[in-house]
Amino acid sequence: MSILTGMRVVESSAFVAVPLAGMTLAQMGADVIRFDLPQGGMDAKRWPVTATGESLFWAGMNKGKRSVALDVKSPRGREIAQEIICAPGPDAGLFITNLAVKGWTDYETLTNRRKDLCMVQLRGDRNGRPAVDYTVNPSLGFPMATGPKGSDDPVCHVLPAWDCIAGNMVVSGLLAAERHRLRTRAGQFVDLTLKDAAAAMLGNLGIIGEVAVNGQSREKHGNALYGAYGQDFETADGRRVMVIALTARQWKNLMRVTGTETDMNYLSGRMNRDLSQEGTRWECRHEITKVLTPWFRARRLADFTETFDRAGVTWSVFRSFAEALAEDADLSTQNPMFKDVDQPGIGRYLTPGSPFTFAGYGRDDPRPAPILGQHTEAVLADVAGLPETEINSLIDAGVAMQMRGDVRLAS
Amino acid sequence: MSILTGMRVVESSAFVAVPLAGMTLAQMGADVIRFDLPQGGMDAKRWPVTATGESLFWAGMNKGKRSVALDVKSPRGREIAQEIICAPGPDAGLFITNLAVKGWTDYETLTNRRKDLCMVQLRGDRNGRPAVDYTVNPSLGFPMATGPKGSDDPVCHVLPAWDCIAGNMVVSGLLAAERHRLRTRAGQFVDLTLKDAAAAMLGNLGIIGEVAVNGQSREKHGNALYGAYGQDFETADGRRVMVIALTARQWKNLMRVTGTETDMNYLSGRMNRDLSQEGTRWECRHEITKVLTPWFRARRLADFTETFDRAGVTWSVFRSFAEALAEDADLSTQNPMFKDVDQPGIGRYLTPGSPFTFAGYGRDDPRPAPILGQHTEAVLADVAGLPETEINSLIDAGVAMQMRGDVRLAS
Repeated sequence: MSILTGMRVVESSAFVAVPLAGMTLAQMGADVIRFDLPQGGMDAKRWPVTATGESLFWAGMNKGKRSVALDVKSPRGREIAQEIICAPGPDAGLFITNLAVKGWTDYETLTNRRKDLCMVQLRGDRNGRPAVDYTVNPSLGFPMATGPKGSDDPVCHVLPAWDCIAGNMVVSGLLAAERHRLRTRAGQFVDLTLKDAAAAMLGNLGIIGEVAVNGQSREKHGNALYGAYGQDFETADGRRVMVIALTARQWKNLMRVTGTETDMNYLSGRMNRDLSQEGTRWECRHEITKVLTPWFRARRLADFTETFDRAGVTWSVFRSFAEALAEDADLSTQNPMFKDVDQPGIGRYLTPGSPFTFAGYGRDDPRPAPILGQHTEAVLADVAGLPETEINSLIDAGVAMQMRGDVRLAS
Repeated sequence: MSILTGMRVVESSAFVAVPLAGMTLAQMGADVIRFDLPQGGMDAKRWPVTATGESLFWAGMNKGKRSVALDVKSPRGREIAQEIICAPGPDAGLFITNLAVKGWTDYETLTNRRKDLCMVQLRGDRNGRPAVDYTVNPSLGFPMATGPKGSDDPVCHVLPAWDCIAGNMVVSGLLAAERHRLRTRAGQFVDLTLKDAAAAMLGNLGIIGEVAVNGQSREKHGNALYGAYGQDFETADGRRVMVIALTARQWKNLMRVTGTETDMNYLSGRMNRDLSQEGTRWECRHEITKVLTPWFRARRLADFTETFDRAGVTWSVFRSFAEALAEDADLSTQNPMFKDVDQPGIGRYLTPGSPFTFAGYGRDDPRPAPILGQHTEAVLADVAGLPETEINSLIDAGVAMQMRGDVRLAS
C-alpha cells in the first residue's frame, strides 16, 4: 500500500515532463498506464543508450508504470486507447499528455466517453509553436546570465530544468483537479504550457521586477550566488568547492571555520560597510573572495572536510557525474531511496525510488521500467474489458503488441 | 472561485522552494497563511531589491498569500502559530515548512493539537546537513558538465532549478496526503529533501545509468543538445539562435527551411551514417554544424524568423532578461497569464498569475504579495479564534505585529 494506491492514471507522452509526471504518480502508488506505438514512442531510443541500444533514459523515466503497445494510427487502436483513458472507476478517468491529438485525444472527444474525465495537457507554448526546454530557456534569458563574467557566449543548462518543473506541475494540476472532482463530481481540463511555467518563474524569482522596476538586466556573475555571498574556490589539491553565506548564520560559520573574522572586520571597517547584511556581502563579494582565496589555496580538500561538516558550514565539493557516484553516499544504497534494480534488457544498477516518504507508509522500493508492450494483454483485459479472443485477434492484426520472448520481465 | 477554493494551508518558510509551493497553492485558490517574525523572515530582504530596499524576490514568491507577523521566539507566539496550523476545518490542518523546529513545529508536537494534520517538511539532505540548491547542484555533477567543451571550470546554474522542482514536489506531496486524508481520515507526515529530489533526477534522466552501466561520465558539450541534434548559431547581425532536431520531424523541418537536404544527404553518404537516427545526429553533430554554420552566418535574424515560425521549426533566439521583456509577447500582458499589478511598497509592474488554466474556472488575475503582517489581526481573529481584546494586548506586547501606516494595501 502507498499513498495513491487505487488511483489509475493513463499517460500518452514522450521525453521528460509528462513521463516524469506519470512516474512520480506511479512511485506514489498509482497504477500508471503509458501507451505507445508498437514500434515505441518518440523517446523509445532517447540517449543515453547502452552498447546494445537500450535507452537508459526511457528506463529512468518510466519506472513502475505499465506499458501498452497500441497502433493508435489505426481507428480500432484509437478506440481502445480511448476506452483505457475513460474506463470506469471512481479513482480512474485521469489522463496526462503532451501529445494530445485533436479529434481523438482532445478533452471534448474524450468526455463523450467519460463526462468526469480529469485531463492535464502540457503544451509547448500558448501560441501552439513547438517549444521545448532547450528553446524556452534561451528565449527567456537564462543562458545569457550564466557562465563567466564578461563573456558574451550564452551557456545553456544541461539539466532540462523547465521540463522537470513542468512535469511536477502536471502532477499538482492532476491532483488538484481530482480533488475537485471528489467534491463536485465535475471533471476538469487543465492546460499548462512549458513556456508559461518558465515565464511565470521569471516573475516569481523577481527577475521581471529587476528589469521592469530597477531597469537592470542581470548579467553573468560566474559562480557567485546572486544577492548574498556564495563562491567557488580552488583547493591546494586541485579540487573545487562551493561555499554559501546566504543567511547570517552561514556567514558567521564560514568566517569562524576559516578564521577570517579579523580580516572581515578589517575589511568592513576599511570599506565602511556592514557585512552582516546579505546585500552588502554581495556588493563586497570580490573583496570577501580575496580574503578567502588564500585560505582554500593553502589547504587540501581532506584538510577541512570534517571541520566544515562538524561546524555546519553550507558547502559542497564540485564533482563530475562519475565522481558523484563514486564519492557521495547519498548516491548509493546507503541512501534508502536507492536500490540496485534489475532493469530488463539493461541489467542491475543503482536506481532511485520516490524522493517522498509518507510516514504512514514508509518507502517503496524502486521498480524497473516496463518493457514496451509488457502489459498490453493485461490492460486490454482488465481495464478495456476486452475478451481474450478479441485481444488475440488485435495482436494478430498488429493493432496491439504484447512483448514476448526471453527478456526477463519484472514481476 | 478557483480549483482549490476552501482549502487552507499554513506555511513557515524562507527562500525559494516552500514559498513557491505556498504561492502555487494560493494561485490555485487556497487560503495560504505564511507566518514570519515581526522583523520578517530570513528572505524578507532577499535580492533583487528596489532602490528603497524592498525585496522584489519576496514580492515575487508570496503573491496571493496572507501574512501574519508573530514572535515565535516567545512561548505565546508559538502557541498561537500552533493554533493557526492546527485550526479546525475539514479543508484545513495542512502545513508546509522548510523551517521545522523540534519541540514546537515538529509533526509529533503538532498532532497533539490536531491528529489528522497533513504536513510536508522539506529538508536539505537526509543527514541533516545544511544543503541548499547552490551546494546540492555542484555535489551531483551538473556544473562540471555545463559550459564550453574542454574547459575545466564548473559552471553553476543561475536558475535555482532544484528549489523550483522541490517546491512543486511539496505541492504534490501535500495534495497526495490530503487526498488520502479525505478517504481515510488519517493525517500524514511527508518528508522530502532537496538532495534526494536532485539525486533521484540524476537517475531518472539516465545519468546514473550512463556512469554505472556504460562507464561514461558525461562531459561538457557546450550548447549541443545531448543525444540528438541541437546547436546554437550566430547570425549575420550578431544575434544567436538555438535550433533543435530531436525528433525526425524537427530534423526534416530544419533541413527543409535551410535548404540543406542535399548537403546532409551527401554528408550521410560520405560518413555512411543514417542521420534520420537521433543518436547518429549526435555522433555526427560537428559535421552537421559545419553544414549549417554558413547558412546562419549569411543571414540576419529578421531574414528567417517568419520562415522558421511558419515552417514549425523548433528554435528560439537567445536574449538577455531585458531583451526577453522587451521582445517576447509571452512576457507581456498580451499573455493572459500576466497583468500589471500594483505591489504595495514597490509599484505597478508585470506580474504572472498561475501558469495553470483549469477550464472549469478560467484564469484568476495575479494578486500582489502581502505586506509583512498585513493579515495578522484578521488571521488571529478568524483562524486562531482570539478575541479582539487579546489580539490588541498581543500587539501591545510585541508578540504579534499588524502592519499599519500609509502603505497602500491590496484589497
